[in-house]
Amino acid sequence: MQRIHVHELPEHVGERVRVAGWLHHQRQLSRLTFLLLRDRSGLVQVIVETPELVAEVAGLQQESVLEVEAIVVLAEQAPGGVELHQPTVRVLSMAAAPPPIDLRLATMKEQLPTQLDRAPVALRHPRKRATFELAAASIAGFRTALDTLGFTEIQTPKIVGSATEGGANVFTLDYFGRPAYLAQSPQFYKQTMVGVFERVYETGPVFRAEPHDTPRHLAEYVSLDAELGFIEDHFTVMRFAREAIAGMAEGVRCRAGNAVALLGLELPVVPGEIPVIHFHDAQQLIEQVTDEAVVGEPDLAPAHERWLGEWALREHGSEFVFVAGYPMVKRPFYTHPDPARPEFSNSFDLLFRGLELITGGQRLHRYEDYVAALAARGEAPDSYESYLEAFKHGMPPHGGFAIGLERWVARLVEAANIRETTLFPRDLTRLAP
Amino acid sequence: MQRIHVHELPEHVGERVRVAGWLHHQRQLSRLTFLLLRDRSGLVQVIVETPELVAEVAGLQQESVLEVEAIVVLAEQAPGGVELHQPTVRVLSMAAAPPPIDLRLATMKEQLPTQLDRAPVALRHPRKRATFELAAASIAGFRTALDTLGFTEIQTPKIVGSATEGGANVFTLDYFGRPAYLAQSPQFYKQTMVGVFERVYETGPVFRAEPHDTPRHLAEYVSLDAELGFIEDHFTVMRFAREAIAGMAEGVRCRAGNAVALLGLELPVVPGEIPVIHFHDAQQLIEQVTDEAVVGEPDLAPAHERWLGEWALREHGSEFVFVAGYPMVKRPFYTHPDPARPEFSNSFDLLFRGLELITGGQRLHRYEDYVAALAARGEAPDSYESYLEAFKHGMPPHGGFAIGLERWVARLVEAANIRETTLFPRDLTRLAP
Repeated sequence: MQRIHVHELPEHVGERVRVAGWLHHQRQLSRLTFLLLRDRSGLVQVIVETPELVAEVAGLQQESVLEVEAIVVLAEQAPGGVELHQPTVRVLSMAAAPPPIDLRLATMKEQLPTQLDRAPVALRHPRKRATFELAAASIAGFRTALDTLGFTEIQTPKIVGSATEGGANVFTLDYFGRPAYLAQSPQFYKQTMVGVFERVYETGPVFRAEPHDTPRHLAEYVSLDAELGFIEDHFTVMRFAREAIAGMAEGVRCRAGNAVALLGLELPVVPGEIPVIHFHDAQQLIEQVTDEAVVGEPDLAPAHERWLGEWALREHGSEFVFVAGYPMVKRPFYTHPDPARPEFSNSFDLLFRGLELITGGQRLHRYEDYVAALAARGEAPDSYESYLEAFKHGMPPHGGFAIGLERWVARLVEAANIRETTLFPRDLTRLAP
Repeated sequence: MQRIHVHELPEHVGERVRVAGWLHHQRQLSRLTFLLLRDRSGLVQVIVETPELVAEVAGLQQESVLEVEAIVVLAEQAPGGVELHQPTVRVLSMAAAPPPIDLRLATMKEQLPTQLDRAPVALRHPRKRATFELAAASIAGFRTALDTLGFTEIQTPKIVGSATEGGANVFTLDYFGRPAYLAQSPQFYKQTMVGVFERVYETGPVFRAEPHDTPRHLAEYVSLDAELGFIEDHFTVMRFAREAIAGMAEGVRCRAGNAVALLGLELPVVPGEIPVIHFHDAQQLIEQVTDEAVVGEPDLAPAHERWLGEWALREHGSEFVFVAGYPMVKRPFYTHPDPARPEFSNSFDLLFRGLELITGGQRLHRYEDYVAALAARGEAPDSYESYLEAFKHGMPPHGGFAIGLERWVARLVEAANIRETTLFPRDLTRLAP
C-alpha cells in the first residue's frame, strides 16, 4: 500500500490508507487513546481502541516515527475534518527520550535561545516549518522572476583573496598556510559577470563578522543578489528590484499557501510602481514633522525609516517605498554619483513596512572612475587588480541590488529577531547546532 | 528606441533597430570597416562606410561597449544570417587597453592557467559563456525535478563548529576569537531537516582543503544535495537520484539549447531505469576480464570505473551506471550497512561516462546505531551532540545524495580539468580572481 500524506486524507474517506509521520501527541482516556500523527503536510488524529494497541502505544515516546494503516472517517471536529479508525501501527523509529521542546502547543512557549539551542526538534513545530516554507517559496519566486527577465544564475567563490565590502567585519581563514577571507558579498563577481551575461543573479551565503549582538544582524545570511548592465541609471535598477520583490511575494502566494494560512499572514501587495522619494526630500519632510535637525545627516535613523514607511502607506497606499540618492559618504566606493549633484549617489534603499529590505544602486563602470574613487579613499588600485580588470576591458553602465532572505521572511511573519527566520543562525556566540 | 538583442535581429529585417554590446572584432578594408558586435545572445556584423565613422571606430579598443542604431539587412554569409547597415555608433564605455585574451578566435588559444588568471575577460568568450549557461540550466533543472517531487529547498550554515566529513581536509577560520570550520558538506543539516520537511535539497558551496593539485579536485565547489525520508533502502534513493539527473539533462535541453548547439554537444539520454551493479559483482567482472586480483579491494580504481562505464554502454546501452554496496570501510560513519551483508553498505556511486558523478546512500536513522558507529570508530558522541539530537527524537529511514555541479558540466562538455567548468576556481595555489 502506497503511503499518502495527511493533507490528502479528505480525498480517501471510507478507504483504508497508509500514512506515516511523527507521534505529535497522545491523549489516553479510560478505554481509548487519541494519537496525533504529524507529517510534513499536517496533523491527523488516530483513534486507538483495542486494549493491546492501547498498551503498546502507551509506551511510545513522543516524536517516535510511526507508520499507520487505518480507515479514513469524516469527523467535523477533528483537525483536517477527518480521523483514522481501526489502525494498525508499525514503529519505524523509537524516540530515545522525551523532546526538549513542547511541540504540542499551537505556539511554542520556550524562549528563542532555547528554541535555537534545540533547533533539530524545535524546527519540527508546524509554525516553524511554515516559516521556512515561506523562505523556500520566496527564493523560488526570486529566481522565477529574474529567469523570466533574461538573467543567468551564477555561482561565485565564497573564499576570496581580499575583503569585498571593506571594513573590519570580515572573517579570516587559513588557506593552505596563507590568509584568505570569507566573501562579505558577491559584489565584485556579479559585476564582473555582467560583462559576460549582462544580467546575473546569485542566491547564496554571505559572511559578516558583526561584532554586535543585535536582533537584526547575523554572521552568515542568505543574500539574493542581482546585477544588470545597459541601464539608464539607478531608476532602471529600482524597476528590476520591484520585479524581484513582486516575484518573491508571488512565489509565497503560489507555493506556500498552506504556510500563509497556518501563520495567518497578510501578504503584502507590491504596487506596480513603488513610490520613490529622494533622500534629501525625505529628510526635509522628517524635519518639518519632527522639528529635529536631520537635513545634512548622512543617513536615516531607524525611527525615520519607520516614519517614512508610515508616510508611504498614508500618502501612496504602499507598504514599500524607495529612498533614492543617499549621500556618497555613506556608500561603498563602487557607487555611481548623481551626475547633477555629486554629493548624492545613484543608489537606493527599499523600505518595507518601515525597515530596510533592499540596498542597491548604479555602480561606476569606467576604469578611470574606479582608479580615481580608490585614490580618493586612499586605497591602492593594486589590491583590486583582478576586480578592476573587468572595467579596464569595457563594462556597460550597470547596477544591482541585494535582498537578505531572512530579513524578508522576518518582515512577512513580523518576527522581532532575525534569528527566528534563520534555520541555524550564526552570531557572536552561536556556532551550533 | 528599445534595445533588442542580436538573436532577435532576423525578426526585424528592413527595420532600423538599436543593439548594444562589446566590440568583439573589427576588420578594416580600404574603404569600409566590419565591426563585429557581441552581446549575450550572439554576434552581429556592422558595416561602417562613412569616412568619419570609419575614422572614429578605428580608434576604439576591442571590448569597448557600443550602442549601435542601424538597418537590419539579410546577408546569408554573415553570422546569424543578417548584418547591420548605415549605423550610428555611440560609445558607452571605452576599453582602456587591448584585451589580455584573444576573444576573436572560435576557440581560445591561451592555456588554461592564463584563461583562469584573466577570467574577467576570458569568460566573455562565447564558448566559455555557453559552458556556464549549461551550469545555470542544470541547477535549475535539478530544482525543478525535486520541487515536483515535493522537496523543500533549505539554506544551511557554511560556518560550522566541527568538521562534518572528518579527515584533515577542512578549512579553519577565526570565529570571533575561537576556531570554526567551513562546512565540507551540508550532510548533518540536510539529515536534520528530513525531520522537518521529509524531503529537502540544497544547492550551495562546500569547502574541501584538498592538499593535492589534480584536474578533478577543487577547494570550493557547488554541491547539489538532496535527502529524503520514509525510504525502503538505498534503491529508493537511487530512483530519486535518477530523477535529479534526468531533470538536469532536461534543464539543459530546455533552457540552454543555444549553448548546446554552439558547443556542438551530444546530450546524454538518462534511461528510465539506470542499470545497477553490486560493488562485489563489479569486482568479479573486472577480475575476469583483466586478470587483476581486485575482489576484496575496498574501492574501485579510476581505470575500473572507466571499464564499468564501457560495460554499461555495451551491455545496457546506458551512459550511466549505479555501483551499489560499497564496503563499509570506505564510507562515512553515518552510512547504513547492508542488513544481509554488513561488511557492505547500502550506499552507491553513479558513474557517468566512466567517472563518478554522484555519491549517495541510506543513512543510519536510530540513535543507538549512531552511538555504536561512533564508538566503533573511536569517536566520542559528545562532539556530535547537536547532530545526534535529531536521531534521539525520532527520524525515519532516510538517505540522500550529492552531485558536484562543476563535475557534471565537465562531463557534458568533456573538459579534462574541472577548472574549465568553474567560474573562479579555488585550489592549492589559486585564490584570485
